[in-house]
Amino acid sequence: MDIAKLIAEIRQFSEERDWRQFHDPKNLAAAVSVESAELLEIFMWLTPEQSRKLPDDKMQNARDEIGDVLICLLNLADQLGVDAVDAALQKMNKNRAKYPVDKSKGLAKKYNEL
Amino acid sequence: MDIAKLIAEIRQFSEERDWRQFHDPKNLAAAVSVESAELLEIFMWLTPEQSRKLPDDKMQNARDEIGDVLICLLNLADQLGVDAVDAALQKMNKNRAKYPVDKSKGLAKKYNEL
Amino acid sequence: MDIAKLIAEIRQFSEERDWRQFHDPKNLAAAVSVESAELLEIFMWLTPEQSRKLPDDKMQNARDEIGDVLICLLNLADQLGVDAVDAALQKMNKNRAKYPVDKSKGLAKKYNEL
Amino acid sequence: MDIAKLIAEIRQFSEERDWRQFHDPKNLAAAVSVESAELLEIFMWLTPEQSRKLPDDKMQNARDEIGDVLICLLNLADQLGVDAVDAALQKMNKNRAKYPVDKSKGLAKKYNEL
Repeated sequence: MDIAKLIAEIRQFSEERDWRQFHDPKNLAAAVSVESAELLEIFMWLTPEQSRKLPDDKMQNARDEIGDVLICLLNLADQLGVDAVDAALQKMNKNRAKYPVDKSKGLAKKYNEL
Repeated sequence: MDIAKLIAEIRQFSEERDWRQFHDPKNLAAAVSVESAELLEIFMWLTPEQSRKLPDDKMQNARDEIGDVLICLLNLADQLGVDAVDAALQKMNKNRAKYPVDKSKGLAKKYNEL
Repeated sequence: MDIAKLIAEIRQFSEERDWRQFHDPKNLAAAVSVESAELLEIFMWLTPEQSRKLPDDKMQNARDEIGDVLICLLNLADQLGVDAVDAALQKMNKNRAKYPVDKSKGLAKKYNEL
Repeated sequence: MDIAKLIAEIRQFSEERDWRQFHDPKNLAAAVSVESAELLEIFMWLTPEQSRKLPDDKMQNARDEIGDVLICLLNLADQLGVDAVDAALQKMNKNRAKYPVDKSKGLAKKYNEL
């Protein structure tokens, strides 16, 4: 439900502002990277432990940046005619085949090549 | 439905492999950036027009990388206790307020500061 | 001359502020990515032609962000005991071998896999 | 010396392969981000301590990726007519003014906004 609503809102947002012209897949892929880096910036210089217990203001920033990454990613997927959730479910199948439980358990080394 | 299924699969995947220990929010935010760059790489050196008409092999790569970004993003959101779709819907409200239709129409300059 | 001066300034800057404790290679690699995305953001939504003729304010931003990427990269290299210019010269040797002139001329496709 | 030699090699490399046509600043800024993410990937899932003591194969990867980021960054700077080392030295001046020693000592919080 909600993700269909979100995609509809993203489309309407772009169309009302006449921004489709800027939203070619190449530009949107760059936007995903830029928004992802803004998300990463929130965690910079924190210890892993600190990253698990964000103070309220940083948690709100993280919510906003997660939102921005998802908006740009769904916008890109929409332009390419890709169902992002479906693509992720299919990728999960590949990941399960690539990292069998009995060979991957507890090993970051394997995961490193995901 | 599907996104709840995807989140459940992501949880099970990590737990079966005992990878929760590596999945602190800081590491997952870095993973989102790394996967986003792999997505961006597909479009590098293409013209905007070429990026709209990907050949089949690049389109499949794009599907896989969109999947990977979404998997990492939902994993991060889950670790933070954030509903990613809800965060995006709320961010859309902020974006609409920040870029009023009558002041933003057709202007990439404004959007640049999103 | 100048690059040695720059590395010396970066060291002094960190030491005077007692920031060496935060500057493990993992954190600095994240900083390089974050600063690179700020550099990329300047060019987002521009056409390739516009990116060649930046207005003065964007050009100054680009100068600053190029500076930040270089500072973080040299800081990281310094922590790892790597001479960045030497590493780049050696990588150029690899690149020349990987992309022979007669097979690469004018082909973005090849370069795509750099 | 060496950095001038490196810039000369980067120019010759592009010209011999007729790749200048792809090297508009927008594309090169994307390349800097993509190469930076490949550098970051080496450190993913490592603890901060592990990132200080890379095994030989990862150290060689790090050298190569530091080289690639520097090559792309200098190529971009060259296309913009910017002296990257000079830009970094000037940015250091701004950083020193922004983070006075007596207010920044030992505080990651401040540095977070660099």
